[in-house]
Amino acid sequence: MGHVSDTKERLLGTALDLIYARSYAGVGVQELCEHARVKKGSFYHFFESKQDLVLAAIDRQWETGRARIFDVAFAKQLPPLARIERCFDLFYEFQCATKAETGKVQGCPFGNLALELSTQDRVIRQKVDRIFGEMMTYVEGALRDAVAAGDIPEQDVSRTAKALIAYKQGVMLLAKTRNDPEVMRELRGEFLRHLVGGKASLAGKR
Amino acid sequence: MGHVSDTKERLLGTALDLIYARSYAGVGVQELCEHARVKKGSFYHFFESKQDLVLAAIDRQWETGRARIFDVAFAKQLPPLARIERCFDLFYEFQCATKAETGKVQGCPFGNLALELSTQDRVIRQKVDRIFGEMMTYVEGALRDAVAAGDIPEQDVSRTAKALIAYKQGVMLLAKTRNDPEVMRELRGEFLRHLVGGKASLAGKR
Repeated sequence: MGHVSDTKERLLGTALDLIYARSYAGVGVQELCEHARVKKGSFYHFFESKQDLVLAAIDRQWETGRARIFDVAFAKQLPPLARIERCFDLFYEFQCATKAETGKVQGCPFGNLALELSTQDRVIRQKVDRIFGEMMTYVEGALRDAVAAGDIPEQDVSRTAKALIAYKQGVMLLAKTRNDPEVMRELRGEFLRHLVGGKASLAGKR
Repeated sequence: MGHVSDTKERLLGTALDLIYARSYAGVGVQELCEHARVKKGSFYHFFESKQDLVLAAIDRQWETGRARIFDVAFAKQLPPLARIERCFDLFYEFQCATKAETGKVQGCPFGNLALELSTQDRVIRQKVDRIFGEMMTYVEGALRDAVAAGDIPEQDVSRTAKALIAYKQGVMLLAKTRNDPEVMRELRGEFLRHLVGGKASLAGKR
């Protein structure tokens, strides 16, 4: 059993790494199997198709991203708006680390799949859409706390959360296109200062 | 000569349509030739590779997009901030039209290629990056006029322009992931109201 789950894990990890580094179409089942040192027959024992593997890989990526970024950034100990900024900073640090390791800004793994596949694969599109929704829920909670604390004016926090996730995706898109994580740092200030209407909202200035 | 340029045009138009509808990797040279009713030998007479064709197609797409969206929206007759909103509205109308025609929100053709290919193709990445830079120049000009007119506070207009293009890309990404252009309408208001710090910046409220 140990070996069986190890095979599945290797396939999942390989899919995450290779597809994130390139694209969904840029990696085939053959190459995935070679990298994971798995026979093609084993692949189809665990996964019906590349789509099936990638759906599991997306779940895994979100589990990891949620634990390492969202649950850390949105811990209640931080002041509400500082949580949102912490989240943005963790994304920035992650892009810097990836660039240092691979020479490339790889962007948001979910955003990448969304733009490559949304017109072509409804199941993957809908899964990514649900993950964006979960991200928004974190941001929305922090905004609600910020309104309650009087840090920002009353507003449609659901819409603002959506706008902040959109902005984060767009900034990562520009950083990937420039292959420069510093784009994120340059645009970090706009993230909260204007979007939520906070007056002294930057954590560093509190 | 008429026939020769017609062949090249058909290849360009086919590449634009098919790649925009799917992805770069989702369309091969064989299929491009079949759709354009062009022999493979002719393809390689005009273009060295799929990359070569797509680079030309990106130029063409930007010529068209600039003329139909940016030059229209950023006409000097409009008040400065209304130009930026007009641009956003033209993007929204374009996504609605595409959805009506194909059933799919296809997003920004440049953003799509940026996220699919930036780690894999430096030449395409750099071309898309330059186009984003040209988009920012339009926005920057309008912001400079808005500052001069006293519509918005003094600010780093270059950075704000970058933030607005990032936001636009992110909103289109969410709209594509939801397959719903109305996401753009919902998030339209945040586009200027907060990002540039305009007090009564919405064109409809002037």
